[in-house]
Amino acid sequence: MIYLDNAATTKPSLRAVERAQIYVTEKFYNPSALYKEGFALQSELKKARSVLLNKVADESAFEVIFTSCGTEADNQAVFSFARRGNAVTTEGEHSAVLAAFHELKIRGVVEPRYAPLLKDGKVDVEKLLTLVDDKTSLVSVMQVNNEIGAINDVNAIAKEVKKKNPRVIFHVDGIQAYGKIPFRLAKEIDLYSISAHKIGGLKGVGALIKRKSLVLPAYIIGGGQEGGRRSGTENTFGIMQFSYAVEEKFATLKADFERLREYREILWDGLDKEVYIRLSPLDGTPYILTVSAVGLRGAVLQQMADDKGVLIGTGSACSSNNKLRYSKVVLGCGYDEKTADGVLRISFSKETTEEEIQTAIAVLNEIGRDLKKRMK
Amino acid sequence: MIYLDNAATTKPSLRAVERAQIYVTEKFYNPSALYKEGFALQSELKKARSVLLNKVADESAFEVIFTSCGTEADNQAVFSFARRGNAVTTEGEHSAVLAAFHELKIRGVVEPRYAPLLKDGKVDVEKLLTLVDDKTSLVSVMQVNNEIGAINDVNAIAKEVKKKNPRVIFHVDGIQAYGKIPFRLAKEIDLYSISAHKIGGLKGVGALIKRKSLVLPAYIIGGGQEGGRRSGTENTFGIMQFSYAVEEKFATLKADFERLREYREILWDGLDKEVYIRLSPLDGTPYILTVSAVGLRGAVLQQMADDKGVLIGTGSACSSNNKLRYSKVVLGCGYDEKTADGVLRISFSKETTEEEIQTAIAVLNEIGRDLKKRMK
Repeated sequence: MIYLDNAATTKPSLRAVERAQIYVTEKFYNPSALYKEGFALQSELKKARSVLLNKVADESAFEVIFTSCGTEADNQAVFSFARRGNAVTTEGEHSAVLAAFHELKIRGVVEPRYAPLLKDGKVDVEKLLTLVDDKTSLVSVMQVNNEIGAINDVNAIAKEVKKKNPRVIFHVDGIQAYGKIPFRLAKEIDLYSISAHKIGGLKGVGALIKRKSLVLPAYIIGGGQEGGRRSGTENTFGIMQFSYAVEEKFATLKADFERLREYREILWDGLDKEVYIRLSPLDGTPYILTVSAVGLRGAVLQQMADDKGVLIGTGSACSSNNKLRYSKVVLGCGYDEKTADGVLRISFSKETTEEEIQTAIAVLNEIGRDLKKRMK
Repeated sequence: MIYLDNAATTKPSLRAVERAQIYVTEKFYNPSALYKEGFALQSELKKARSVLLNKVADESAFEVIFTSCGTEADNQAVFSFARRGNAVTTEGEHSAVLAAFHELKIRGVVEPRYAPLLKDGKVDVEKLLTLVDDKTSLVSVMQVNNEIGAINDVNAIAKEVKKKNPRVIFHVDGIQAYGKIPFRLAKEIDLYSISAHKIGGLKGVGALIKRKSLVLPAYIIGGGQEGGRRSGTENTFGIMQFSYAVEEKFATLKADFERLREYREILWDGLDKEVYIRLSPLDGTPYILTVSAVGLRGAVLQQMADDKGVLIGTGSACSSNNKLRYSKVVLGCGYDEKTADGVLRISFSKETTEEEIQTAIAVLNEIGRDLKKRMK
């Protein structure tokens, strides 16, 4: 089995799971408990916050709020700060942001605005800036597009946006970027969403990194955990495992980045250009190669690849629940429905080997040619 | 170390963790993925839903929405259905419900109403019913009070409430009851919150059981997981481990219930009545004995017990973040501040042994007498 759907989820780091096991077997206490074993857990959680934070930000200026997933972090960011006037995002966002913007429209208090994408999947920054005005309360831009792999220079965009309106709260969905792309948060970024299970953590853990001076309303309220910004007993095991996975992933971030960029190009070079066209830009994330077998159905190729032991995606795994045939993001890049229908997303992890890439080439070419022949 | 703070959190079942380990090591796929390994996970999640549900409800009438914790389930229930007119709850609720009701007041659209408690910690049902009228949209009543251990007959209360206004949505916080109290959901109950980590599951997993015919709005939105009612990649490992812990806990539910009721009385019988008065009613949950060392500080006794290797609570662990000196619930039962200040909550799990109870008696008497002497 060759797993090349790592943008949907990655295999948890078993080493990180083992290290965190003690939070299941022994230190299972409630971190809010007022005996020393409870306090001790609070300081371990503090260490985890620091690990997550110092990899991408200045710890004196930012802090970490743990959430149950990237989606929750995105929701909290949008609903907390898109409170009046208008809110601006891009057509390339994950459904966690897009659904929240759609909800804004239903509620009718805040006008949602969408910046279009360029052909390579990046947001059209010029057009985005024209949407930002005096009444804009929130701007939300994803760093790495999860379907195409395009990278937005969110630091630069945040700077430009704040030049236009310094009161805007700037949120970044960093879920496909954190631990994968060399990056540090500029001071113009207010909120940054991340998720554990995209980089060797467990499902059910995420975080919202926020500028310390920003007052973040709670989205889930009750016992007052996370300084009142996220109630619910802390998922100590999941959080500690996340922090260990982060340590591992950042330790090889640059080497992974270089190697996977090479692998991505080896994969692309090996694919039959009579079958596949490339959607992912050269300067996109090394972790994703999105192609289209124009005229064929990606969903069918995905099944055929599965039968041959190669697991790949077709756009976002998350959009499968929304029963959309065509990826809005791919259409948003200006491709037609035939191209959108043929999309395959091949996504890597630090564990991906060159041998797996070679097998994937052989399988993708075989099934693509086979299906194409049958369609004639 | 004797752990008697199981109402705050319980030790995860290691057998359940082991059984679920395969969802970390092998079946780590995204359940929304459209290859057969993804579909397979959906059917395993379906099995987990069934396990959780059939223990307390008719599977043809109810269904399970997985959440990240009990607090999220409570929040979703309250915010989804307290939409107009007024909403009624009790003064004995967990902060997950009380904070949501407080938020309703801030928003100003729905009038929150609070039914008082009787001395034994149960809600005053007669008074609760006088608060329910034609304009009531939601009633939320907890089944087992987490601080005192009183059990509300939620099935009977729901029936009475619906007699008065059949359009009311009736929510039950069952977090301290599920897996501990013999119970099946009456058809008058619309929503029922549960949490994994109170019965051998991991932190970071909860569920909202709902009547199938009830349309539940999403609280966290995005990829459309959980039938659109709770987005975010499913925490497969946590959910499967929860279902295994549920199987184990319900297998011994009645035997645990009888044995712990006995232990609770052995504990109470052994405590020095010159130091402690009892707050927990005889007909309350066997899992909690709440006492007060009137005139002493519970927090100090808790530290002293900790130093002697006995971990106990002082009211709700969750309220520690809210920096309230006195438990509102204890005051709500009609006790004075001196009594509220001396509260100790000793709470059991299925693993609690009689030997541990005997040690707890010795330690609690020793420290209680000691502190009392020093206070003179």
